[in-house]
Amino acid sequence: MSQAIHAILFDLDGVITDTAEYHYRAWQELADAEGIPFDRSANEKLRGVSRRESLRLLLNGRTITPEQEEAWLARKNRRYQELLQQLTPADLLPGVAALLDEIRQAGLKTAIVSASHNTPTVLDRLQIADRFDVVIAGPEANAGPGRNRPKPAPDLFLLAAERLGVAPWACLVVEDAESGVEGARQAGMVTVGLGPTERVGAADLVLPNLAGVTLAQLLYAATWSVAEPGFDPAQQRRWESALTIGNGMLGTRGSLEERFPGDQPSTLIHGLWDDAPIVYTELANAFDWTAFDLWSDGEAFRMDRGAVTLYSRRLDLHSGELRRHLYWTTPTGATVQISFRRIASLADPHGVGVRLEVTPLDRPVQVRVRARIDGVVENEGLLHWRNLQQGYDGAIVYLCGETRRTHKTLVEAMTVRQEGVTAPAHYHDAPYNPAFEMTQTLAVHQSWAVEKLVAIVTDRNVDDPLAMARAKAAELGKGGYAALFTSAKAALAEFWAESDVIIEGDDAAQRGVRHGLYQLRIAAAQDERVSIAAKSLSGFGYRGHAFWDTETFILPFFTFTQPALARNLLMYRWHTIEGARKKARENGYAGAQYPWESAETGEEVTPRWVPGPNGEELIRIWCGDIELHITADIAYAIVQYWRMTGDDEFMAGAGAQIILETARFWESRAEPDRPTPGRYSISDVIGPDEYHEHVDNNAFTNAMAAWHLRTAGEVLAWLHTYAPTRAAHLEKMLDLSRERLVRWRTIADNLVFLRDSRTGLIEQFEGFFQRKEVDWPAFANRTKSMQALLGIEGANEHQVLKQPDVLLLFALLPQHFSDADLRVNWDYYSPRTDHTYGSSLGPAVHAWLACRLGMPEEAYTHFMRAALVDIEDVRGNAAEGIHAASAGGVWQALVFGFAGLHWTEAGEVAVKPQLPSHWRRLAFNVQVRGKRHAFDLRREDAVKS
Amino acid sequence: MSQAIHAILFDLDGVITDTAEYHYRAWQELADAEGIPFDRSANEKLRGVSRRESLRLLLNGRTITPEQEEAWLARKNRRYQELLQQLTPADLLPGVAALLDEIRQAGLKTAIVSASHNTPTVLDRLQIADRFDVVIAGPEANAGPGRNRPKPAPDLFLLAAERLGVAPWACLVVEDAESGVEGARQAGMVTVGLGPTERVGAADLVLPNLAGVTLAQLLYAATWSVAEPGFDPAQQRRWESALTIGNGMLGTRGSLEERFPGDQPSTLIHGLWDDAPIVYTELANAFDWTAFDLWSDGEAFRMDRGAVTLYSRRLDLHSGELRRHLYWTTPTGATVQISFRRIASLADPHGVGVRLEVTPLDRPVQVRVRARIDGVVENEGLLHWRNLQQGYDGAIVYLCGETRRTHKTLVEAMTVRQEGVTAPAHYHDAPYNPAFEMTQTLAVHQSWAVEKLVAIVTDRNVDDPLAMARAKAAELGKGGYAALFTSAKAALAEFWAESDVIIEGDDAAQRGVRHGLYQLRIAAAQDERVSIAAKSLSGFGYRGHAFWDTETFILPFFTFTQPALARNLLMYRWHTIEGARKKARENGYAGAQYPWESAETGEEVTPRWVPGPNGEELIRIWCGDIELHITADIAYAIVQYWRMTGDDEFMAGAGAQIILETARFWESRAEPDRPTPGRYSISDVIGPDEYHEHVDNNAFTNAMAAWHLRTAGEVLAWLHTYAPTRAAHLEKMLDLSRERLVRWRTIADNLVFLRDSRTGLIEQFEGFFQRKEVDWPAFANRTKSMQALLGIEGANEHQVLKQPDVLLLFALLPQHFSDADLRVNWDYYSPRTDHTYGSSLGPAVHAWLACRLGMPEEAYTHFMRAALVDIEDVRGNAAEGIHAASAGGVWQALVFGFAGLHWTEAGEVAVKPQLPSHWRRLAFNVQVRGKRHAFDLRREDAVKS
Repeated sequence: MSQAIHAILFDLDGVITDTAEYHYRAWQELADAEGIPFDRSANEKLRGVSRRESLRLLLNGRTITPEQEEAWLARKNRRYQELLQQLTPADLLPGVAALLDEIRQAGLKTAIVSASHNTPTVLDRLQIADRFDVVIAGPEANAGPGRNRPKPAPDLFLLAAERLGVAPWACLVVEDAESGVEGARQAGMVTVGLGPTERVGAADLVLPNLAGVTLAQLLYAATWSVAEPGFDPAQQRRWESALTIGNGMLGTRGSLEERFPGDQPSTLIHGLWDDAPIVYTELANAFDWTAFDLWSDGEAFRMDRGAVTLYSRRLDLHSGELRRHLYWTTPTGATVQISFRRIASLADPHGVGVRLEVTPLDRPVQVRVRARIDGVVENEGLLHWRNLQQGYDGAIVYLCGETRRTHKTLVEAMTVRQEGVTAPAHYHDAPYNPAFEMTQTLAVHQSWAVEKLVAIVTDRNVDDPLAMARAKAAELGKGGYAALFTSAKAALAEFWAESDVIIEGDDAAQRGVRHGLYQLRIAAAQDERVSIAAKSLSGFGYRGHAFWDTETFILPFFTFTQPALARNLLMYRWHTIEGARKKARENGYAGAQYPWESAETGEEVTPRWVPGPNGEELIRIWCGDIELHITADIAYAIVQYWRMTGDDEFMAGAGAQIILETARFWESRAEPDRPTPGRYSISDVIGPDEYHEHVDNNAFTNAMAAWHLRTAGEVLAWLHTYAPTRAAHLEKMLDLSRERLVRWRTIADNLVFLRDSRTGLIEQFEGFFQRKEVDWPAFANRTKSMQALLGIEGANEHQVLKQPDVLLLFALLPQHFSDADLRVNWDYYSPRTDHTYGSSLGPAVHAWLACRLGMPEEAYTHFMRAALVDIEDVRGNAAEGIHAASAGGVWQALVFGFAGLHWTEAGEVAVKPQLPSHWRRLAFNVQVRGKRHAFDLRREDAVKS
Repeated sequence: MSQAIHAILFDLDGVITDTAEYHYRAWQELADAEGIPFDRSANEKLRGVSRRESLRLLLNGRTITPEQEEAWLARKNRRYQELLQQLTPADLLPGVAALLDEIRQAGLKTAIVSASHNTPTVLDRLQIADRFDVVIAGPEANAGPGRNRPKPAPDLFLLAAERLGVAPWACLVVEDAESGVEGARQAGMVTVGLGPTERVGAADLVLPNLAGVTLAQLLYAATWSVAEPGFDPAQQRRWESALTIGNGMLGTRGSLEERFPGDQPSTLIHGLWDDAPIVYTELANAFDWTAFDLWSDGEAFRMDRGAVTLYSRRLDLHSGELRRHLYWTTPTGATVQISFRRIASLADPHGVGVRLEVTPLDRPVQVRVRARIDGVVENEGLLHWRNLQQGYDGAIVYLCGETRRTHKTLVEAMTVRQEGVTAPAHYHDAPYNPAFEMTQTLAVHQSWAVEKLVAIVTDRNVDDPLAMARAKAAELGKGGYAALFTSAKAALAEFWAESDVIIEGDDAAQRGVRHGLYQLRIAAAQDERVSIAAKSLSGFGYRGHAFWDTETFILPFFTFTQPALARNLLMYRWHTIEGARKKARENGYAGAQYPWESAETGEEVTPRWVPGPNGEELIRIWCGDIELHITADIAYAIVQYWRMTGDDEFMAGAGAQIILETARFWESRAEPDRPTPGRYSISDVIGPDEYHEHVDNNAFTNAMAAWHLRTAGEVLAWLHTYAPTRAAHLEKMLDLSRERLVRWRTIADNLVFLRDSRTGLIEQFEGFFQRKEVDWPAFANRTKSMQALLGIEGANEHQVLKQPDVLLLFALLPQHFSDADLRVNWDYYSPRTDHTYGSSLGPAVHAWLACRLGMPEEAYTHFMRAALVDIEDVRGNAAEGIHAASAGGVWQALVFGFAGLHWTEAGEVAVKPQLPSHWRRLAFNVQVRGKRHAFDLRREDAVKS
């Protein structure tokens, strides 16, 4: 795995041994002798600080002569070294010896990274000098620029990594000091902080000390972030997707602030639709709020200019912050340390921030910085903005624009703050690119931070978005980046408290799961009029359109852990039902038929034709015409939400009406079967397996339609009890006569469903078993989908599935089928499915069902295809955006599959775990009817069950 | 007509009477009395200059006291007024009295615009005071800003126009002074200069004096420019097209320098292709070199901000300069005079310039100016540029970029020059928008001119376009705008000397013809690898693709007047023949089949599908598949060029080979007719009338194919004589056996051609006469094409033509048909043709043939539809670009139609004029085999013939 840790770097004082106590005693003796007030609490400030700086802190403003200073430092150190002689191996802190043994066993490298020149003595006395591959004992004068500063600079950590021959992102640092944690973070390393959260809370993982701590526990710190493993120009697009941040209103891809050739910066905002050729409508890429230019002695910074000698980028899943740290040597040879941090907070849909910090490492440098709002943004070459207007009011610059065809207004307003030094911020009124520009000459090791705080407002939010954006920018300027960061971290902490899933024993899986859940959360809006797109807000794939992905794959996660967000997503279908009515009407059917792809209005926006691979021929896309099952999938999601939450008010309102109106569609769509009177067919459809078009009586479609028609009757019956007036109103409005309800039941009971009653095998559609078989071994080493290899017609003629179709029924309607049936159908369909390059919706479902069949190891193979799809770019298409449905499927595979969440006969929620053998723990919460159920499954339990 | 002149404004001195002589005598007496050297030649400088300024010039550096100055001025004026008393009506200059009578008769308004306060006295003495609607006798102190400055300011002319109630662009000024001509031009008026060209050469028309001059002669001055009649935001797109300027390498639409909402700035450069969806390839809109921003006291200038109280824009066809003059009052109330001039020179494909001049009119103003190269350019929302890089080297700023898919490089480099005052020019490095910025505080009436000179170079021109662009920009900076202007005017003068067509008696027609010829000329490159697109380089319509429009409609103009350019255009087909071979091969035919739409390679680039009017349905475009006749049209143009020029070298090289290779296509395409052995058919085609698709044996296609096959044999025979080795080589390479040549002849003689031998009526294609008739009266007031009204299928089912099809044969192959046949077919087809909203190619052909039929008045109706198609936006689609083929057709209608150019039996070129009754003169040149034939047809001749 590209994210694995290969080396552990330990601080010495307070981590390996308690030399901190000896330091304290030596300082205390000096202070007492000189009559300076000092105590243990004052000593806290000296943790991780150099000797000379410690003396300064101890003096607390008193002045002494340089000669005195040298003498006092020597006295303190002499005393400290005397005390050190008392050290023995028994002074190793609890847990250290065992941990070092375990690390050596595991083959990871180790280093000591200490500020103290006494380190060799200490290690000798402790008799552990041979346990470390590298020992850094304080700054080394000749280590060179970027390698010779004390903590909190990253230098000593980078020096250690260099000597270990391990990349910074593969290092984990154990520290007890705030400055050490900060230095390690700036080095791009994973951090474990020992001690109270007030001190080391910025670390990825906080432990009280190392007593009883295992290597696995340390490494688990790395599951809270996703690191880009080195800078590879060819991989930028896929990392842009994976490193997307957001706040529920917008998503911003992880493109570089200063740009890079071939990049694809994008900020997609919920509801900001504009018309586009072929795809009808798409989310207009919003002005790039991340744009930040930097010149060092006049040389423009870019990753492909000069030389980058440190590079680390990491998305922190605790805070949603994306951090980049690097050392850049300009073409003329000056080296500067540059860090970019960006943040979007779930608590603040309208505020985002970028923080740039620059430090010259080897010579004074004139630094120029330009913080821009870039209005020259595009959707893969298409422009959506017009009437761009910009301005500056003394403190804030802003850019307004209007979508070309839908005339929606977007405003971004920016203010800047500085730290370290402060340069005048000049307005730079470049066309389409209003900016602040600042110039500063920095001494060696002098740091300058520029924070860019941007308010983003559309006319969906308020009548006067410009006024709101300016007010908001002013407010952001007061709190600065730190306030945004704190708010973001707090909001995510609340989310994780409810929605995290803990996996122990499999850090790659844990990281993948958390990354997916983070991506889902930031895509979900506090807004009933938008849904979650197939690629969330993280890329241009599928143009921001919503599919059944939302209801069938993503929604359960929200329904079970964030029901308020689930309700918003279902209300989106209610607000767009007029589009569904129109589609039914235009197709000659009754009721409401939901579109295969949905955007602002609920009208069908599936492209009818798309250019083929050679760019010339057009391919007809039939999904918008005949992929019908989404209408039942939405009804299913409503009922699931209702049953889990008990939200009767929703059900009596929007929920029941959607179910009943869409049931009328199925009634009108089902065709009385001519050869077999009394039977009903649904012909000419596409099922979930889209390799097969224009098929008759697709098992999934028919079973879901039958479920829908039956459930509609049950919902109406419930409504009569719960809200009789509403029931009567709907009956009248939708013409729900007794005869009609009987007809629904009749159709449901008589819809063709091709199950062999002898074997239990279900035929995916009429004639599927007559299609040709694929010579699978011939395709063993493929890197493309079976459809790409066989052609559209070729795949259609074969028994090859893009994704589970019959099998999905066993996941959604388990009560309808026996486990024996599942086994029979699994054995038939799973080997005929394009698991690797078919639909990304498939693997999670296979994982879930493999657990049902008691095959957790096989489940695991499928599961990891889904859990790593974006971080490891398993399918090679992460560049187009996050696989949101896969992330939702991963949650279902964990909870319904590996944990086996189900309802007992008594209606109680229960689990039946089936964990892969290397998983030690699986823990999560679900909310059922407002009650929170926490499940904490340990390996032992799993074995037991 | 929107361009008509409604008022004539006369200067007094030197125009109406010779008061100039009295001024001279008064000054001379003063000079003699004071002992100052002065004579008639020194007096020349005083022409049109105020009294006080005249004294200054007379003093020539001497100083006198203010008291002396006042006394001398009074003395001179007293003496002058005494002299004036000698004036009588006999002092009216020759021709003036008759001209004033004629103007009054014609109902036009008149004014005197004189610098002299003595004007009323003069008019009284001349007894013509009552002949003028308005008299301006020098600046009036209380006339207000922009109305009170002496010439060369436009003020007095604008004051007169205001008092006459006539818009400036409808005024014509007669002046004898340079300053008067300049003032009138700045007022946006048409100018007639009296006197030597050195003095009044900037005028639209120069006459020695008014002796014998008619109103018509004066008004003719207005045929040398096209004026935008007032600023109408809704009409901007169409004026952008009509006011396109260019230099044979590039065309730049007349969008406003400072931009306007909804505008479409574009600079299209020959050969700068980039791929695009649906249309395969299009000319990538180049960086906007016109971009110029202006702030007055911090207020950004735009036409929709503040108030514009003068607006005039005019494209000068003498120089190709586009001028805009305006008065702008800022939102805070300061008024400035602004003029923009832009130029591209036919003598300089890489240099262009814009000149901005600003003058505060009522208060001092701080003016900021920004001259940009705008890289944020688009093709109707599509972006073509990437890797934009910009820089500044102390004197020049530049922008480089690369097309996204074809990787062609474009560089634009800019320098600036100033006049009046000079402010430091700062580099403004806005992203994608490198600029120079200058700020200057101007006193009232102080003028500041900023010239922006831009070099435009692509990697089609040189290996290192950046180096060349920088060198070129430096060179442009030396000569400045004036040098570019002079070069442009000189180059166009050469063009007009060869290619102008003079029409007297119809200024609207004259202007339309000149505008069209100018547009054709600037579209023709000194480059064999490009053609002329359907919309030239003036708009995005048809994406820069070349059609048969070039060979059939445009080429004759060049063949007959600019044969070197014609040769380039034909060589384009030679260089792209590989694409034609590929098309034939892929369609299963032999030889070469030219594409219906052609771009860089000659491969077919007709879009196969285009979005329908509602944006959802796709419409299949069949022209690229089955509109075949273009292959014969190209052969026809080659033969016409060869016969007219005698360019045997071309014919023996590219010409013959194209004709022979394409003949092989026709041979393989013709189908032996099964029911009638011995006959040949060409089925499933589209003829010129594109309302009918998939037709069999289209008369035009078959006749042109037969002509082509016959001519190919003749060409080969000629080649055997002229270049036997070449002939043998081609015979071998193309397998031109004797049998094959016989077969060509057989096919040519036996291709189906549905002519009724009894009536001479030709059926457009098989079954045309069975199609339904249109109820024409029902469509009398339509504003859309018949196809738009009937639908694609509907039009196909009716006998309605988009454009001449059978009739075009009579134009191209007159020797094949009798006049009686023409009459029969005209009577049948003309009433069934969509003249108004069908193809814009049609009217000129109908004009031409109507002349052949002796119907010049009917011809004229058709002719004007073509001649005014862009200036008057006759078809409502001028916004998409110039109708280049229509302009070419206009020339053919004039020369082949109205003039009746033809060859006598003896092979001599001759005319047979048929002029509309109100035309007094039609004059033009043609070159035949290197010899220039000048034709000057007068009404009298026309009547005689």
